[in-house]
Amino acid sequence: MSGGTVCVRRVSYGTVGIVGLGLIGASIGLRLRGVGAAKRVIGFDVSPSARADAVRMGAVDASYETLNHLGDADILVLAVPPDALIPCLIEADVFCKVNSIVTDTSSVKGYVLEWLKTYPLRFGPRFVGGHPMAGNEGRGAADAKADLFEGRSWVLTPTQATDKSAYEAVHSLVLTLGAKPLTLTPEEHDRHAAILSHLPHAIAAILAQMGANLVHPEVAGASWNDLTRVAGSNPDLWANIFTTNRHEVASALEDFEFMLSELKKAVDAEQHQTLLEFFQAAARAKTAWRN
Amino acid sequence: MSGGTVCVRRVSYGTVGIVGLGLIGASIGLRLRGVGAAKRVIGFDVSPSARADAVRMGAVDASYETLNHLGDADILVLAVPPDALIPCLIEADVFCKVNSIVTDTSSVKGYVLEWLKTYPLRFGPRFVGGHPMAGNEGRGAADAKADLFEGRSWVLTPTQATDKSAYEAVHSLVLTLGAKPLTLTPEEHDRHAAILSHLPHAIAAILAQMGANLVHPEVAGASWNDLTRVAGSNPDLWANIFTTNRHEVASALEDFEFMLSELKKAVDAEQHQTLLEFFQAAARAKTAWRN
Repeated sequence: MSGGTVCVRRVSYGTVGIVGLGLIGASIGLRLRGVGAAKRVIGFDVSPSARADAVRMGAVDASYETLNHLGDADILVLAVPPDALIPCLIEADVFCKVNSIVTDTSSVKGYVLEWLKTYPLRFGPRFVGGHPMAGNEGRGAADAKADLFEGRSWVLTPTQATDKSAYEAVHSLVLTLGAKPLTLTPEEHDRHAAILSHLPHAIAAILAQMGANLVHPEVAGASWNDLTRVAGSNPDLWANIFTTNRHEVASALEDFEFMLSELKKAVDAEQHQTLLEFFQAAARAKTAWRN
Repeated sequence: MSGGTVCVRRVSYGTVGIVGLGLIGASIGLRLRGVGAAKRVIGFDVSPSARADAVRMGAVDASYETLNHLGDADILVLAVPPDALIPCLIEADVFCKVNSIVTDTSSVKGYVLEWLKTYPLRFGPRFVGGHPMAGNEGRGAADAKADLFEGRSWVLTPTQATDKSAYEAVHSLVLTLGAKPLTLTPEEHDRHAAILSHLPHAIAAILAQMGANLVHPEVAGASWNDLTRVAGSNPDLWANIFTTNRHEVASALEDFEFMLSELKKAVDAEQHQTLLEFFQAAARAKTAWRN
């Protein structure tokens, strides 16, 4: 199954159920309904306003107050925060039909797949972990867009236990959503996410707090605004991410701390040559970066 | 002298000399010639290509290979890197006419003004330190724009010894360039710049290096791209800034290190509540930020 073929071919995913109608969940619904890729898109969210927004925008054909109404879904997408995922998997397993394929969009993968090894979910082999690397400023369904995932990476984390056809269905779904699927082990995903996403959020959060007490914020230029942009993201979500991916986050923080202390030594000792080499290495790394 | 009046009134700065025809120097020339605010704009740069670019773009009426040709300037703008500033001040003092007003655009202010206390520059009282908080990606004259400073802050650092009319002339020049003048002590400037500009550059440089060895750079999202954007800036310039502002930079690095180690403790100890409060404080700081 190649990416190009799937995009052109008419794929129907039957009934798609979306659990969590926030920015990610509602954007998935908008896209699927927009391209007519599902017979029906149904959704569930604990929040009445998220449900109302999703229906009003046309992200779902219908929304429900309880998860059990999504039992008919052929593909179930769990677009919930990391700490809600395991309870949600357990509940979904009770209600979903016998051959349902299940995926998620959570920012941390390893701890869920560890847990799955010990918990006898019926749909365990048909669960394919996923994580779209797309806009997530903690906003809700009202900001959803059908092209949110266009051209963005979407990591999939199948394991040895994953059913091949379930993986292929989710891979195809990701292509339909406009994203580029990228298959990694859960461990690879969590290490990359810790360095490329979780660490930057920690840094932005520290910087924003350091700037809070300055008398003349107008001295800030573009670099400050760029580096603190994501500091306003949803605190609950980020506290969850830092708890659930704590080993990889701690390791990334440690590596960062080491480089920071080396830099500080060079500043204290006025080692101009060391500072020059540090900034040269950074400029080379940035130039070589392709994303 | 109020900002609004100056902008509307026709101000002529006589002959303006620009030392250093990089992004900043050439942008100053473009704007002054664009609005007809100077009788003549003349420039000097050690680089033949920078001189050629500046003339071709119309940033200067004429450019010269040696600084002594700028002796006639009524206002002399030293748009050179921090470590070139003191030699440049000494040389300019030899050549400039008796009542010349001199300003600079360097990212660090304190060490120059300390040095000025001990060195008998003729134009010492007519030197007004300045720092435009505008685009600085280490690119040259070719990228200069007449509106580079539009709406951006431009810090001025007069001291007790500064001549009042020299300060007013430079303040007026900054308004003519489209920027918002902001008067700080050199110490205030350097502390603010260390936190709001120098620290973010250090962080971006570390992050870019940490990402360099990852196998799957495509996992990066928008936050990574934002936080590493300035990592490719001119390494020479940044090594100079970190050397010349080393006390304030070291202090900012130390504060950052402290907050990072507190965060790491909370991650290691799985203190979800502490993590939540950390991200909440960051979101509050970001929301309260006005720039």
